[in-house]
Amino acid sequence: MELLKNRIVHESAIVSQDILRLDSILNQQVEPALMMEIGKCFVERFKDAPITKIVTIESSGIPVAFAVAAQLNVPLIFARKKQTVVNDPDSYIERVPSFTKGIVTDIVISKQFLSKEDHVLIVDDIIANGDALKGLIRILEEAGSSIEGIGIVVEKAFQDGAKYLRESGFNVQSLVKIASLEEGKIKFVD
Amino acid sequence: MELLKNRIVHESAIVSQDILRLDSILNQQVEPALMMEIGKCFVERFKDAPITKIVTIESSGIPVAFAVAAQLNVPLIFARKKQTVVNDPDSYIERVPSFTKGIVTDIVISKQFLSKEDHVLIVDDIIANGDALKGLIRILEEAGSSIEGIGIVVEKAFQDGAKYLRESGFNVQSLVKIASLEEGKIKFVD
Repeated sequence: MELLKNRIVHESAIVSQDILRLDSILNQQVEPALMMEIGKCFVERFKDAPITKIVTIESSGIPVAFAVAAQLNVPLIFARKKQTVVNDPDSYIERVPSFTKGIVTDIVISKQFLSKEDHVLIVDDIIANGDALKGLIRILEEAGSSIEGIGIVVEKAFQDGAKYLRESGFNVQSLVKIASLEEGKIKFVD
Repeated sequence: MELLKNRIVHESAIVSQDILRLDSILNQQVEPALMMEIGKCFVERFKDAPITKIVTIESSGIPVAFAVAAQLNVPLIFARKKQTVVNDPDSYIERVPSFTKGIVTDIVISKQFLSKEDHVLIVDDIIANGDALKGLIRILEEAGSSIEGIGIVVEKAFQDGAKYLRESGFNVQSLVKIASLEEGKIKFVD
């Protein structure tokens, strides 16, 4: 997606060799028109899948996941990142390490929202090591839902998450793949 | 908004006298069509305001705030709830108590996204004591942005947040107002 690559080149900040800040595009500001455009790309890439639900993890994944859900007219479920007094006690919980926060986090989805009949498209903003997504997949497997695919806006291809998920048999579609952030420069795959 | 009241009556869970769980409507599952309908209500209620940005706080506020932003075609900014390695160091930070988590949280917005020229509509899912929103307002005031109004999906009118904000002069518009959760029953205002 050339538009997105251009935005990334001009607006992102390289924090370190591993970390790219995409605040004005995905992580703090979002433009609805760009999100809907990105959503359309995912709808096109998974057009043959009988998707009944979009699932993401709070919170940067929500705008793009919402854009996909709106275009498919299916519900969006967002996993919460912590058990609180408000969570449904009858929930799936998986503990995962958080790459950007340097801590472990529980990801939580109430059992009522996932069933064996569901065909789920996972949508998220960025994949690095993929730890949170692996936890989400364990939840979906426990619920017996079918995972139709995984749509990612920005894949950091120099980290192992997306590679691992593809090798595990998932249809992972990334709109932009970053090969490296070394020497203060963004190199894209291809 | 009668549709929303009906959904709340049939799908919410009263956790305690103070806490209502709205998982299937706002806090874990969202239906894009309902969100767009809610977004339309807010657009109508603030139709005379020259809004340049929608601002919310992660994460349950994001879907409804996105729906408003999409219909007005303006950017959505979502405040993050914690300083991480990915946050822009040049940020506004306000410390606020979290009613549902029982802890204090920092809410963070990068300075680049707010200016004196901005006319902001704040949108959030639920207001209880309003502590997070008060923190958000302090950030917007520090940035010099004009606050055109505050749109809330569900106001817990038996807690002080919305009342305080109205008395402070803000145009607070709630789509549904809950008068009480006592005796295991939801009573609406009016």
